[in-house]
Amino acid sequence: MARVLTPRSEDFPRWYQELLAKAELADNGPVRGTMVIRPAGYAIWERMQSEMDERIKAAGAQNAYFPLLIPESYLRREAQHVEGFSPELAVVTHGGGKPLAEPVVVRPTSETVIGEYLAKWVSSYRDLPLLLNQWANVVRWELRPRLLLRTTEFLWQEGHTAHATQDDARRYARRILHDVYEDFMRTVLAMPVVAGRKTARERFAGATNTYTLEGMMGDGKALQMGTSHELGQNFAKAFDVVFSGRSGTREHAWTTSWGSSTRMLGGLIMCHGDDAGLRVPPRAAATQALVTVVKEGEGVPRAAARLRDELEAVGVRVALDDRVDTPFGRRAVDAELKGFPVRIEVGPRDLAAGNVVLVRRFDGTKTSVRVGAIVKTVVETLALDQQALYDAALARRDAGTVEVKTTDDAIAAAIAGKWARVPWSTMGAEGETKANGEGVTIRCLVRQDGTVPDAEDEPGLVAVVARAY
Amino acid sequence: MARVLTPRSEDFPRWYQELLAKAELADNGPVRGTMVIRPAGYAIWERMQSEMDERIKAAGAQNAYFPLLIPESYLRREAQHVEGFSPELAVVTHGGGKPLAEPVVVRPTSETVIGEYLAKWVSSYRDLPLLLNQWANVVRWELRPRLLLRTTEFLWQEGHTAHATQDDARRYARRILHDVYEDFMRTVLAMPVVAGRKTARERFAGATNTYTLEGMMGDGKALQMGTSHELGQNFAKAFDVVFSGRSGTREHAWTTSWGSSTRMLGGLIMCHGDDAGLRVPPRAAATQALVTVVKEGEGVPRAAARLRDELEAVGVRVALDDRVDTPFGRRAVDAELKGFPVRIEVGPRDLAAGNVVLVRRFDGTKTSVRVGAIVKTVVETLALDQQALYDAALARRDAGTVEVKTTDDAIAAAIAGKWARVPWSTMGAEGETKANGEGVTIRCLVRQDGTVPDAEDEPGLVAVVARAY
Repeated sequence: MARVLTPRSEDFPRWYQELLAKAELADNGPVRGTMVIRPAGYAIWERMQSEMDERIKAAGAQNAYFPLLIPESYLRREAQHVEGFSPELAVVTHGGGKPLAEPVVVRPTSETVIGEYLAKWVSSYRDLPLLLNQWANVVRWELRPRLLLRTTEFLWQEGHTAHATQDDARRYARRILHDVYEDFMRTVLAMPVVAGRKTARERFAGATNTYTLEGMMGDGKALQMGTSHELGQNFAKAFDVVFSGRSGTREHAWTTSWGSSTRMLGGLIMCHGDDAGLRVPPRAAATQALVTVVKEGEGVPRAAARLRDELEAVGVRVALDDRVDTPFGRRAVDAELKGFPVRIEVGPRDLAAGNVVLVRRFDGTKTSVRVGAIVKTVVETLALDQQALYDAALARRDAGTVEVKTTDDAIAAAIAGKWARVPWSTMGAEGETKANGEGVTIRCLVRQDGTVPDAEDEPGLVAVVARAY
Repeated sequence: MARVLTPRSEDFPRWYQELLAKAELADNGPVRGTMVIRPAGYAIWERMQSEMDERIKAAGAQNAYFPLLIPESYLRREAQHVEGFSPELAVVTHGGGKPLAEPVVVRPTSETVIGEYLAKWVSSYRDLPLLLNQWANVVRWELRPRLLLRTTEFLWQEGHTAHATQDDARRYARRILHDVYEDFMRTVLAMPVVAGRKTARERFAGATNTYTLEGMMGDGKALQMGTSHELGQNFAKAFDVVFSGRSGTREHAWTTSWGSSTRMLGGLIMCHGDDAGLRVPPRAAATQALVTVVKEGEGVPRAAARLRDELEAVGVRVALDDRVDTPFGRRAVDAELKGFPVRIEVGPRDLAAGNVVLVRRFDGTKTSVRVGAIVKTVVETLALDQQALYDAALARRDAGTVEVKTTDDAIAAAIAGKWARVPWSTMGAEGETKANGEGVTIRCLVRQDGTVPDAEDEPGLVAVVARAY
């Protein structure tokens, strides 16, 4: 078979670009660093949104919408925040045909504008916790853009909450980390992410603590898939989010924020894609099963349409490919590129014998299945493949992770495309500086048992070191 | 009972502002003309999105996402388009800390950027029709902002399609008008909108024909609730959207665009709201039934929770209000403000007698219902109220519409808060100019039988004349 994509082992970034183009997932926008998410890519993003949104609501947060345009002065109110975001801002200086009295920025994130409204809406401990989320676009001017992973504009959800105590804020930031993000990434995206705590240097601008979820891509590099921040009282003080406590005292609230974006779609592609194209985990797939008419023949179109209806009736997301004037081989290659979890090929000869062919995208296996058994088999196969993709990614992550004892060994391993686990006490801030100089970062700190530390100075922590997107 | 809102008859705009604030639906943003959509408002918008999205997909369009930032030069390619939108643009002149070589605009709408990609993706008649939609925010600098109705930033869906023939483009623009917009507005929003054709003067900038849906608000003014445009070959020529036809000829495509926005939420409020607050049609309501614990008492909280579960089990969107430390009267006023279609009051005395009280927001009626019959009664009442709101709005629209014979009478009726139906042949472009001078516009042209005309010069057309938001 002719090769469709540059093999990953030959040139991973090129494989990724070609896959995005040929599977019609995304394209570059006209303004440098922006992107177009094409229908095939957007359909997966919609599935992701729906699964995430359900979890966010189950965690008690309500959706709302805050403005895109933020007065520049808002950003200046929190010193670290403005320092972190200033180099990335898009600034609107003209509106309605006139220069603006005060320039406004296109939101890079919404802590500041939401801080302003938290201050209006919170007055008593009875108003807390106040749990908000929004689905929105944000703009961060990107010097080294990469489609879906690092773009000047991206789509995301950003949660913003206010709490009466530090303890409650911390518990909620961790709840989002585990019950929303980690659960979604593991069970829907089939990605064995590592949950940990960022070092002080890698924290969000304005946070007192950042939790993260890191995924291993097909080339061994890490991708930050989502973060959840404790903001302490930093933004509450900058925006005067004050409440009266039970005993009448006036106190600043404790806030959190947390975000995950279309970058997860890039992560999904880079984690599960193979040399034939994308492999979409069934739970994230907009189309889980593609019923393909191999060629015209006695009863074939009718049988294929009936099969489509039967699969739909049991809740499988199914599409029908009956474009018999396009060569079958080309359609098969296209289906592999797009990564539909299973294909059911309906052809005249098989059908005459009462069979159809089930093709698993996961491993390419083809099985002849009785027509009467195919619906049940598809449902079972989708469940199996969801787990199989997870298991394969976990095996790759474990094989790609090494335990080392020194900073130098950690850096060398990272440069070789591995994740290195090294004692944080050995590495420290000094080792982190050295690693950064080599293009290597500490992705997160974790405990020996894999759980997430409460503080950076807990004894026995492990630094997970890697190159990253 | 103390008055909660300024009565509509006293000051309709003030009633609207107070309702948005007290029902916690929306608030002004920090940049003039922008808005915050609060959770209670956003939850209705999410219901609207979900119902609309289903209809858009049923019409064959696929969702995608195109960039927020558009090179200024793109807008200049279509002469009428740039002329129409230039006064409303927000312009980004700085990005990443530097002045930009070419300024970029924040999209006011996406015909231009999508035109660029249609040109890339369309090459043969086999690629047509190409049917796209996106859910996005847009920015149009607004000099006289009004929350939800006319805001500098708003949320919307915008559809963009390319077709091989003018006829196919026209049929699709009408399909969206009727099967998506009109059906949604009538059956979900319970609004008896009038579908018609815009005059040349009221067309979208760059369109050859604009279809519209107009709703009557509580003060008799009109609100344009959604539009569907035939763009002819204007954008296809500006962006070189060319395809090879069956016989090998190279032809420009025919395109359409169509949009509906958060303005519909303002329309819903202004159509159905009364002096006690909002009335949300059950199909658009995020919370259809509120189970209220009147006060503590033997078995009351348990009975209320069980009722909530039973309603949820039959698919009613239900919430439980058990805040017994807040006075019952205050909670009832709040529920009326927010417009939940039905309330079920569970109190100790009624419950002891085996009853609960059903309160219909539609007309305020209270009925004692046996606990065993309440689920069925709620389901029936929701269906009844959906229809009742529609019927009431239709009766108001009919009572507020007059047939007149002259332009002067039409203008006078519009100024008096009516919709005037006047022969288009009598009024003409000259009458339209005169009306515009009085702050009155032709909302649309319709046929005598209420159907939508194919051309402005069809004989016997009626102009619907009104003041509008």
